[in-house]
Amino acid sequence: MSTAVSPLAPTDVPDMPQIDGVRLATAAAGIRYKNRTDVLLALFDKGTTVAGVFTKSKCPSAAVDWCRARLKGGEARALVVNSGNANAFTGKTGKQATTLTASIAAKATGSTPAKIFLASTGVIGEPLDATKFNGVLDDLAKAAEPHGWMNAATAIMTTDTFPKVATATVKLGKARVTINGMAKGAGMIAPDMATMLSFIFTDAPISAGALQSLLKTGVEDTFNAVTIDGDTSTSDTLLAFATGAAAAHGAPKITRASDPRLKAFTKAFNGILADLAEQVARDGEGARKLVEVVVEGATSKTSARKIAMSIANSPLVKTAIAGEDANWGRVVMAVGKAGEPANRDKLSIAFNGIRVATKGARDPSYDEKEVSALMKQPKIQIKVGLGLGKGRDRVLTCDLTKEYVAINGDYRS
Amino acid sequence: MSTAVSPLAPTDVPDMPQIDGVRLATAAAGIRYKNRTDVLLALFDKGTTVAGVFTKSKCPSAAVDWCRARLKGGEARALVVNSGNANAFTGKTGKQATTLTASIAAKATGSTPAKIFLASTGVIGEPLDATKFNGVLDDLAKAAEPHGWMNAATAIMTTDTFPKVATATVKLGKARVTINGMAKGAGMIAPDMATMLSFIFTDAPISAGALQSLLKTGVEDTFNAVTIDGDTSTSDTLLAFATGAAAAHGAPKITRASDPRLKAFTKAFNGILADLAEQVARDGEGARKLVEVVVEGATSKTSARKIAMSIANSPLVKTAIAGEDANWGRVVMAVGKAGEPANRDKLSIAFNGIRVATKGARDPSYDEKEVSALMKQPKIQIKVGLGLGKGRDRVLTCDLTKEYVAINGDYRS
Repeated sequence: MSTAVSPLAPTDVPDMPQIDGVRLATAAAGIRYKNRTDVLLALFDKGTTVAGVFTKSKCPSAAVDWCRARLKGGEARALVVNSGNANAFTGKTGKQATTLTASIAAKATGSTPAKIFLASTGVIGEPLDATKFNGVLDDLAKAAEPHGWMNAATAIMTTDTFPKVATATVKLGKARVTINGMAKGAGMIAPDMATMLSFIFTDAPISAGALQSLLKTGVEDTFNAVTIDGDTSTSDTLLAFATGAAAAHGAPKITRASDPRLKAFTKAFNGILADLAEQVARDGEGARKLVEVVVEGATSKTSARKIAMSIANSPLVKTAIAGEDANWGRVVMAVGKAGEPANRDKLSIAFNGIRVATKGARDPSYDEKEVSALMKQPKIQIKVGLGLGKGRDRVLTCDLTKEYVAINGDYRS
Repeated sequence: MSTAVSPLAPTDVPDMPQIDGVRLATAAAGIRYKNRTDVLLALFDKGTTVAGVFTKSKCPSAAVDWCRARLKGGEARALVVNSGNANAFTGKTGKQATTLTASIAAKATGSTPAKIFLASTGVIGEPLDATKFNGVLDDLAKAAEPHGWMNAATAIMTTDTFPKVATATVKLGKARVTINGMAKGAGMIAPDMATMLSFIFTDAPISAGALQSLLKTGVEDTFNAVTIDGDTSTSDTLLAFATGAAAAHGAPKITRASDPRLKAFTKAFNGILADLAEQVARDGEGARKLVEVVVEGATSKTSARKIAMSIANSPLVKTAIAGEDANWGRVVMAVGKAGEPANRDKLSIAFNGIRVATKGARDPSYDEKEVSALMKQPKIQIKVGLGLGKGRDRVLTCDLTKEYVAINGDYRS
C-alpha cells in the first residue's frame, strides 16, 4: 500500500459544512485494515430521497445488487460503507452479508432494511464477515453528528492517498442549499462509472426521480470521463441523497430535473461531480501526472469519447508521459486503434498547447526542447484535432508509473 | 532499451534451413541504432507469390499502405525491412520514402518497384531518410545468400531481446517443402495482428490467392490471439512468400487453400505462426511470465475471445501475475467488464490447473499456499469457465512489470 500522498493532491481542501438531515460517524471495525477507520455510517432524516448509478460490470458486487434493488423505493435512512472488503464474487455468502448488514443497520437506526444503502470496497472474493457490524453500527448510530466529513471520506479509502471531498452552496428559489460530496478511487477505475465509491448529500428538497435524472446526466462528462487503468470495478457506486431539510427555510420542492429553478443547483451539482472525478484521477495509483485528453473535430461526441479513451487507456501513451516524453507517435497509434473515423493526413496533435504534429506529420516548427520542458509540468494536456467534424470530448487520466505496478503487484498478498 | 534477454526466451533455437529461391542479406545502415544491423534485404526468384495481412489501425504506416496496394499484383521479387524508424505518420515525406526505397531496391535487384515489399519498424513520426538505402541495397543484393536466417531475424528487432525464428519441413504431394518464419514484436502488440512484423517463406508452389487465404485463416488463432499491452501498432505486417522452387522436384502447384493435398502444409504453416506468435508473447516488453488465458463455456467463440482479451489486457490482472499473486478477484473484474454474457454465480476460475473459484465464490477447497507456489512458475495459465455454452478460446499475453514502464518511459528520449 502506498503511504506517500499523491503529488497531485489538491492543495486547498474545503471546509465541509453540515447538511441538515445528515449525520455521520466512523469506526475501526477491523474488517481488513489495522489501526484505521474502515466503516462509515451516514444517517438521514425521514423523507430523504435517494438516487444512484452503478458499475456496468456483468459481475457486480453484492452491495451493488442490494442498492439497485432498493433504489426503486426512493427513500434512504442510512448508508453503511466499509473499506477493505468489496463483498464481490462472494456468492450466497455475499448476499447474506448484505442482508445481515442492512438488518443490523436498520435495527441500530430505527429504520427498515429497505431504506438502508450499502457500499463495500476493497478485496474481491473474500467473504465479508457482516457480524463485525454487530454493536459497531449501534455505537455509530448513537455517535453520529453533523460534522466529521473528512473523517467520513477517510474511512472509505483503500489505496487512496488522500480523502476526496467537495462542497458547494447555491440558491434554490430564495433559500440557500448545500451540496457535499466525497469519493474514493485509486485503481480499477474506468468507465463506465469511473470511481469505486462516491456519495453526494444535499439538503435540497428534490424527488428521487429528479435526483436520479440529475445524476444520470451528471456522470456522463465527469465520472464516466475518467479512467485510471481501463479496469472497471465490480463495485462502482455513486449515490446521491437529498434530505429536503432546506424546505423548512423556503426551498421549493423539485420534482423534475428540468425544473428551471434547478438551474444553479444542477450546475453546482455537476461541479461537485467534476471536482471529485478529477480528484480520483489525481489520486490514480502511482500517478505523478494528471493527464487531460481533448479530442476535437471528430465525427461525433461519441466518436471523440472513444478516441479520447483509447488514448487515455494506452499503456504506451501513459508510460511516455511518466517518462516526460512528448511521444506523439504513440498518440497517433492510439487514435488509429480506436477504430473510429480518422484520417491520418488531417490529424494534428498538441501537448500543453504546443502543436507537435499537423496534417499527418511532424509540425515543421516543432521545437523538441520547448515541448520537453513542458512535459515536466504536473498536468499534461494532449489535444488531438481530427479535422473531420464538430465532435468534441474530454477525458481525464493519469500517467502509468512503476509505482502503479508496485502497488498492484503486492496489494493482496 | 532492454539489454538482458527475456527469461522466457526459448531454449531450443532451430537450425534454419535454406529455402530455394530465397536469398538474404543484412546491413548496418545507421537508420537509428548504432553498431547493429538494421536493414534486411530478402531476394526472391522470379515467380514468387506473396500474401499479406496488416494492422487494422486507421493510421497505418506508409509501408503498410505501400504493401496493401502492391499485394494485388501477387508477385514479389524483394522484401526490404528496416528497424529503428516505422515511417508512420510521416505524411507526404513518408509516402515519398516508400517510393524511393522501392525504386532503389528495384534497381539493385533488377526488378520493378511494384514487386518490392517494404516493412519499417521503430519510432513513429520521424521522417525516414530513404537515401540511406542508396548503395546499401546494391551491396546487399550482391551479398545475398541462402543462409543467414538468424542474422535476418536479428536485423529486424527493436526492443526485442531475442531473434524469433521457426521452421518446419513437410510433404506436399511427394516432395518435401520447407517453411521458414521470423518475427519481431516486443511492445505495441495487440490484435488485430498481434505482431509488428513477421515474414514467412516457403518453396512450396502456392498461388497468391491460396496463400492469402491460408494466411488470413492462420492468423486468427495465432497472431491475432496475442496481446502484450492492448496497443495496436501502425505497422503490423505479416507477409508470406512462396517461391515455388519445390515444383522442380515434384511438388504440385496449389491454387486453392482448400486443396486436400495442402493439409499437412496448412498444419505446419499454422504451427509456424503459432510458434512465432508465442515467441512474441515470451518477449513482451519487460515480461517475466508467459500467460495463457483460456475461456470456456462462453456463448460463442467470439464471446470467449472478447472475455479472454479483457483478462489478457487488464493491467490489474497483469500486475498481479507480476507479483505472483493468484488474484482471481481481478479475473472476475475483467470478465465483468468485457460486456459479454456472463453469470457471476456460474463462474469458475483456475490458475495452472488449480481451481480457486467455483459457482461465483471462492472454491472451498482452495489452498492459497499451493496456488502461491504455482504462481512462481514462468508460465501461468488462467482458465475461466463461464458455464453458459460451448464457446472456447485461448489468448497469450505476458505480465506487466516495472520493466515495461521503464522500457517505455524512456524508449524515445
